[in-house]
Amino acid sequence: MTGKSSAVKSDIEIAQEAKLAPISEIASGLGLEEEDWEPYGRYKAKVSVKTLKKFQEKADGKIILVTSINPTPAGEGKSTVTVGLGQALNRIGKKTVIALREPSLGPTMGLKGGAAGGGYSQVVPMEDINLHFTGDFHAITAAHNALAALLDNHIHQGNELNIDPRRIAWKRVVDLNDRALRHVIIGLGGKANGVPREDGFDITVASEIMAILCLSEDLKDLKERLSRMLIAYTYDGRPVFVKDLKVEGALTLLLKEAIHPNLVQTLENTPAFVHGGPFANIAHGCNSVLATKMGAKLGDYVVTEAGFGADLGAEKFLDITTRAGHFRPGAVVIVATIRALKMHGGMKKEELKNESLDALAKGMENLTCHIETIKAFGLPYVVAINHFIFDTDNEVKYVKEWCAENGHPVALAKVWEDGGKGGEELAQLVADTVESTENHFKPLYSLEDSIEDKLSAVVTKVYGGKEIEYSPKAQKQLAKIKKNGWDKFPVCIAKTQYSLSDDPKLIGRPTDFIIHVRELKASVGAGFVVAMTGSVLTMPGLPKEPAALNMDVGPDGKIVGLF
Amino acid sequence: MTGKSSAVKSDIEIAQEAKLAPISEIASGLGLEEEDWEPYGRYKAKVSVKTLKKFQEKADGKIILVTSINPTPAGEGKSTVTVGLGQALNRIGKKTVIALREPSLGPTMGLKGGAAGGGYSQVVPMEDINLHFTGDFHAITAAHNALAALLDNHIHQGNELNIDPRRIAWKRVVDLNDRALRHVIIGLGGKANGVPREDGFDITVASEIMAILCLSEDLKDLKERLSRMLIAYTYDGRPVFVKDLKVEGALTLLLKEAIHPNLVQTLENTPAFVHGGPFANIAHGCNSVLATKMGAKLGDYVVTEAGFGADLGAEKFLDITTRAGHFRPGAVVIVATIRALKMHGGMKKEELKNESLDALAKGMENLTCHIETIKAFGLPYVVAINHFIFDTDNEVKYVKEWCAENGHPVALAKVWEDGGKGGEELAQLVADTVESTENHFKPLYSLEDSIEDKLSAVVTKVYGGKEIEYSPKAQKQLAKIKKNGWDKFPVCIAKTQYSLSDDPKLIGRPTDFIIHVRELKASVGAGFVVAMTGSVLTMPGLPKEPAALNMDVGPDGKIVGLF
Repeated sequence: MTGKSSAVKSDIEIAQEAKLAPISEIASGLGLEEEDWEPYGRYKAKVSVKTLKKFQEKADGKIILVTSINPTPAGEGKSTVTVGLGQALNRIGKKTVIALREPSLGPTMGLKGGAAGGGYSQVVPMEDINLHFTGDFHAITAAHNALAALLDNHIHQGNELNIDPRRIAWKRVVDLNDRALRHVIIGLGGKANGVPREDGFDITVASEIMAILCLSEDLKDLKERLSRMLIAYTYDGRPVFVKDLKVEGALTLLLKEAIHPNLVQTLENTPAFVHGGPFANIAHGCNSVLATKMGAKLGDYVVTEAGFGADLGAEKFLDITTRAGHFRPGAVVIVATIRALKMHGGMKKEELKNESLDALAKGMENLTCHIETIKAFGLPYVVAINHFIFDTDNEVKYVKEWCAENGHPVALAKVWEDGGKGGEELAQLVADTVESTENHFKPLYSLEDSIEDKLSAVVTKVYGGKEIEYSPKAQKQLAKIKKNGWDKFPVCIAKTQYSLSDDPKLIGRPTDFIIHVRELKASVGAGFVVAMTGSVLTMPGLPKEPAALNMDVGPDGKIVGLF
Repeated sequence: MTGKSSAVKSDIEIAQEAKLAPISEIASGLGLEEEDWEPYGRYKAKVSVKTLKKFQEKADGKIILVTSINPTPAGEGKSTVTVGLGQALNRIGKKTVIALREPSLGPTMGLKGGAAGGGYSQVVPMEDINLHFTGDFHAITAAHNALAALLDNHIHQGNELNIDPRRIAWKRVVDLNDRALRHVIIGLGGKANGVPREDGFDITVASEIMAILCLSEDLKDLKERLSRMLIAYTYDGRPVFVKDLKVEGALTLLLKEAIHPNLVQTLENTPAFVHGGPFANIAHGCNSVLATKMGAKLGDYVVTEAGFGADLGAEKFLDITTRAGHFRPGAVVIVATIRALKMHGGMKKEELKNESLDALAKGMENLTCHIETIKAFGLPYVVAINHFIFDTDNEVKYVKEWCAENGHPVALAKVWEDGGKGGEELAQLVADTVESTENHFKPLYSLEDSIEDKLSAVVTKVYGGKEIEYSPKAQKQLAKIKKNGWDKFPVCIAKTQYSLSDDPKLIGRPTDFIIHVRELKASVGAGFVVAMTGSVLTMPGLPKEPAALNMDVGPDGKIVGLF
């Protein structure tokens, strides 16, 4: 975020002034015909999954993954860089499509007020994208809760499957930050009102159905994954799956539109697929494989983003998502901000606006670790400095020189203030790198490795940790996972995004630390084994002054309070 | 439901074979320009509320309300008659628009499998209408639950408003049949997870926000109604409203698209607004006033439907909806089936397929009561016999002759099997009646009357009951309603739909019965006082074999199991 003028415009003001092209123009610019897409209003569309088949002979474009160092709580502006880079690549003559996650309503009403890039690098219409959009998250919420209702109804109506109400593995969801629903008791009120049991609500982005929607290659794959979701255990300890309830058809039906990627545009009319949004802790944290594949099919480049830092989002993208989508990334952009680098160098949050080359120098070790991670995957990479208003010339110069000395390609991105124009240096570097650097991409581990070996590979090679300690509970769960044959899945580590370790306070590049695996859970439908470390919140709470308090819409439909 | 052929097609088979016109054609047929509407796919659109202003100089078309006698559990086919009548009016040269409620996902997944008319009188695309449609119900669910989360967060964050957690008047909702959520305890798990309290979930159609959306005239009216919703009481007994939480802007924002009526078409390409769907017990039970007004503005006729029988839906339409929408109905169609008339004549459910002129003769008293109700409102009316496959010619002849003898205009409707063609006799009769009969429409009571007098007017003049008994709880609530000045609202009685009384077993035309008002509740935002009689379920349960078990979607997107 630069911002030279004294009256900096808010994201929503910029978005409302944008000159959007009709979505029909964006679609035809991608070579799509009317039969390939359906409009949702004049500026949003769903592009049919069938389109992928239609274009199957066309060679795929390059997939550029945008990730970052361990972020500050304010975030590193990855989405903004992703959008800005996409715009910039188009400016330098590369036909580029963007692929991003959909924002969740919970954080929008809570702290964030919206998430669709920022400044002059946004996807639009931002109001729609930040609210109900094309209804994907609502469809996922409905399917998730329909399954819960059908499960409780099965127990209430005689419990033919002999399900143990104390061992239900399927909670309910809402797409809101609602801490009061984390732990609840349901089924109260007597015999007519179900069977009393403990339950809880997660936020919709934590639903396994969200992860599945984002990993499925088509409707058939979606239904198969849904059918094998683990939802409970019987009194005698046998797992119960969706297919045992015979409702995978109904769930698929509820998701039949949600599976199609949503097409929108950026402020500079660059096409963008905004589709799906799983958590980057208990799930894999990137937009749908269908959106990325569609972008690659329709563009020479597709720029996509993975959640949190490279230790979480990128690792999962490279070990989980590429396997599900059967694709191969071309290069990785590692976003760093001067702010976050200084934080990793030990500077206090309140002082981050002040220049400090010392803190910066020390903080570079965090970036180094993430660069080594990408190298470990055999991929070309570029460092992008996402410029903020308080960054000094000295600081920027320092980072650039440090990168040059260490042989890391680097570019300054001023995409927040200048849009695509501010990202041209980065775009050129990305294009040169992906076209001239050898790509030896290989996931970090083999699926045939044991769960322990897979986890160990991530902890030692990506986080730089020493070893893993499993809680007694996790050990029991590990045995059960092996027994049930779920140990051939990739692993998905849920960990704080603020540190390479599982302790958010260990900034910089900690060493010799132990990762504590508290719990293991097989997401059998999504196809990964989640390892929980530290405390992972799957239902956020609202702050004392929620963003909702500042939102309004006038009688004319004019919106304020999204940003 | 007639159905002469041995292989009767299911509703979804008929719908899937329909030749739909692009929604752009339907819209331009209504005189709408591109700026007036937004597409949702190729066959659905939202028509902007602003359109009403644009056409304000144009005279309104006639509003035809479709209601029925007290139904059997299978329903009287009101929606089917509404659609068929709309199609038929177009066939006889009257430019007609249909206005219907949106189906709720809960009953669709539960017992009903869908609700968009039937046979050759359906609104389409029926799959979309029965599933997520344009997302209105999801938006209402999100707004309702966002308010609940913001309320619980307020208490958790210090409770500045001094809200008593034991006296929260705002539950949560899901658009599903989920009995296990009727009575829950939330906020468990310790200090970080909210304040423990009793709570419960209603189905979305029971949300006051649903009622408000359907009674609002524009975005401004919507926001004002939302702001005055009663959500809790303080420890010292003062009411707490949405405006005290300062979140009416955020809630309105979440509903800014949902307020625009949805335009679809029937199997015969008759335009239909399908918008909103409040319960007909604790709410007023008809589609949005905006949909009805838009239909009246764009057509010479608009045919709309009210839920349940005339004692519930029509009474509320005439006393609540017409006041909120400031419109005047032209005529009422009272739908009766031979089946239901025989049931009211004392025939057992299992025997209803057999001919019985005796039972039929006795059952006519139920129809008589509803005719008298419509007369009491001063409105022209027509009796429509909705023909079913097992009706005998003798039975149909009997009803026709009975009507003729008693001076009631009557027509047989075969719209299920024959579409608009099967409704031409009815359409001609409706047109003749509305154009030749004097209209002395007047609501049943004055808003200045006391709550007791308003309730008494409905009970004695519509239900044919003797008097009202108030529970001690209701008496206390009545005093509070008066004290708070909420007694100038119309009343909304929640009662079984199967009987004119509050006892579902009292079929026919019971007399001298007492209506037991168990509870009174002011829906201050919607603008009515609900009187609960008997047990009213605001969260249905699923049956032993939910419709969801038979639903499926093939890899090609082909759907089965909606009907």
